[in-house]
Amino acid sequence: MTNVCDLAPDYIRAIAPYQPGKPIDELARELGLDASRIVKLASNENPLGASPKALIAIDAAMDTIARYPDGSGFDLKAALADKFNVDAAQVVLGNGSNDVLEMAARAFLSSATSAVFSEHAFAVYPLATLAVGATGITAPAKDYGHDLAAMLAAIRADTRMVFIANPNNPTGTLLSNADMLAFLEQVPSQVIVVLDEAYGEYLPQELQSDALIWLARFPNLIVTRTFSKAYGLAGLRVGYALASAAVADMLNRVRQPFNVNSLALVAATAALNDDEFIARSYALNQLGMRQLTQGLHLLNIDYIPSYANFLAIRIGNATAMYRRLLEHGVIVRPIGNYGMPEYLRVSIGLAAENNQFLQALEDAIKD
Amino acid sequence: MTNVCDLAPDYIRAIAPYQPGKPIDELARELGLDASRIVKLASNENPLGASPKALIAIDAAMDTIARYPDGSGFDLKAALADKFNVDAAQVVLGNGSNDVLEMAARAFLSSATSAVFSEHAFAVYPLATLAVGATGITAPAKDYGHDLAAMLAAIRADTRMVFIANPNNPTGTLLSNADMLAFLEQVPSQVIVVLDEAYGEYLPQELQSDALIWLARFPNLIVTRTFSKAYGLAGLRVGYALASAAVADMLNRVRQPFNVNSLALVAATAALNDDEFIARSYALNQLGMRQLTQGLHLLNIDYIPSYANFLAIRIGNATAMYRRLLEHGVIVRPIGNYGMPEYLRVSIGLAAENNQFLQALEDAIKD
Repeated sequence: MTNVCDLAPDYIRAIAPYQPGKPIDELARELGLDASRIVKLASNENPLGASPKALIAIDAAMDTIARYPDGSGFDLKAALADKFNVDAAQVVLGNGSNDVLEMAARAFLSSATSAVFSEHAFAVYPLATLAVGATGITAPAKDYGHDLAAMLAAIRADTRMVFIANPNNPTGTLLSNADMLAFLEQVPSQVIVVLDEAYGEYLPQELQSDALIWLARFPNLIVTRTFSKAYGLAGLRVGYALASAAVADMLNRVRQPFNVNSLALVAATAALNDDEFIARSYALNQLGMRQLTQGLHLLNIDYIPSYANFLAIRIGNATAMYRRLLEHGVIVRPIGNYGMPEYLRVSIGLAAENNQFLQALEDAIKD
Repeated sequence: MTNVCDLAPDYIRAIAPYQPGKPIDELARELGLDASRIVKLASNENPLGASPKALIAIDAAMDTIARYPDGSGFDLKAALADKFNVDAAQVVLGNGSNDVLEMAARAFLSSATSAVFSEHAFAVYPLATLAVGATGITAPAKDYGHDLAAMLAAIRADTRMVFIANPNNPTGTLLSNADMLAFLEQVPSQVIVVLDEAYGEYLPQELQSDALIWLARFPNLIVTRTFSKAYGLAGLRVGYALASAAVADMLNRVRQPFNVNSLALVAATAALNDDEFIARSYALNQLGMRQLTQGLHLLNIDYIPSYANFLAIRIGNATAMYRRLLEHGVIVRPIGNYGMPEYLRVSIGLAAENNQFLQALEDAIKD
């Protein structure tokens, strides 16, 4: 009898799924630890929790959950269009920005095409590329960040997409607006540039992205953003893309009709204008970043200077250190699968959580 | 300058997206109606709302929404495995069963393959097939239901998947367990059979599906189910597939890492064993079905006998009647896109809602 799985396309059979950060409950189960004493600094979540405005909106929408969500996302798209001064037809909503990244790959890539991404960039880019049978081209990094000249040089005749994370995950590196603009000017017009700004809210005012200004000029630009980080809605799954109306229409063709759930829609609509919460989250992250970097200096541990809400720290045998930290009830992220086997990625948490991590690190070094 | 959209694969450019039922808010906006007086019988939702156990579970999980969901869905998969006496490795969770259907297509179909589905069957089957560039083969229906002999005959050498909805949406027809089993015995082993049982909870005890018994015998069988219908969680988006562990593993390779949100996970886990709610929903549906069919008899309107929570009624110019009903504040579903231009699909609602529909229908006929 034929094994049906043997007949799946080769590129599907070759996929190794994404490895998420270890959930608190899983660690508690595995090591018999008290879940309430575990610190998770593994998924770049907002340690303040969700926007309070989002929580109020969810509460008010609880009696709608037996109904299908509004598949058009009318209210959230209108709010995004209003805030960013684009047309609602330029907005595509996703089940997290991961969904939008996959839609881009499904809409524009196929086995006859290739996509370029950087060494040490977000793991979903190669996954989304491989899942549609396209060829992934890894451009070398420079100082753990994107090397735009190398990425330009990597573009082939069959290349249809370039993925860039800015700031980059898991390294926290940042490309300047001037460099990104110069890159867009040089990319061939048949290549879509997916600019992933999941961590943009953590940039200081003077470094904020100009990407939305560029949309009118570059019909091949897709900017993706998320409510999973600064807005504190990772559990609800909602992200979005801003692009030309024509490109947005292509993404919507491969979008699942009800990809964003009802509570995520109302929560994101409410959180979008919770400026006070975003300001508070930004300030906490600045303080936490200083706390962590000062603590690492004292421990003589190297890190990559970061513009986001996490730090990649150089630890030697990172897998062994990851396990030792788990035993201390601290979950961080090993990033060997990003070609960085000597590094751990640590999210910025509350002051007490950062402290618990630094203490566990110090203890683990001594072990 | 090249238009990037012209370079997307032809099969993507040919997609016409799924048309969902009109949301209440949208109709209220368009016709200036009071949303609270609109009756929506367009999306086969549970008129009782969500399982009360689910609502309690959501409330208790509100402080987790800033964290990513458990991407492995540990608790919900364990609950499903326990209830259905399968291994957790045989369960795949989806952002609604729509997500699971698309995963099946992405994992097993490609431009070199074809998939078979029936005339008048659920619209997502051709959409999911076309979105991966595979060829869709429509088998003719028999009395608006699946004709299994015709489906068998439609299978070609390059066919890798057959989609069957049982009961079928939008016609409500049912295949017997004996017929389905005979079909599985005849389908070539290299063809995956996706058996979509979204409406299974509305079947009386003696007609419930034997599909889970067949899983051990047919490694090419995928059974999909949902929490969107009888469990009343359409807004939260959660469905699942049960299959052999090997097939489940292939689906998980193309699953988005956090495809099911945190609140959906806890709500579904709680709702799964809310037998009292399912019994109440079933009983209400039986009563409402009798109310609607009796009302239709009085109005001399034909319908297709249905085993689900909706009725396909024959109305002549269904598009015109759909519009007239909208003006009366009643949303039903035109199904011209299912090759049934003379029919409207009407979901079973609360007694008062069914009454409002019948009254609006009577008035609209007289208009």
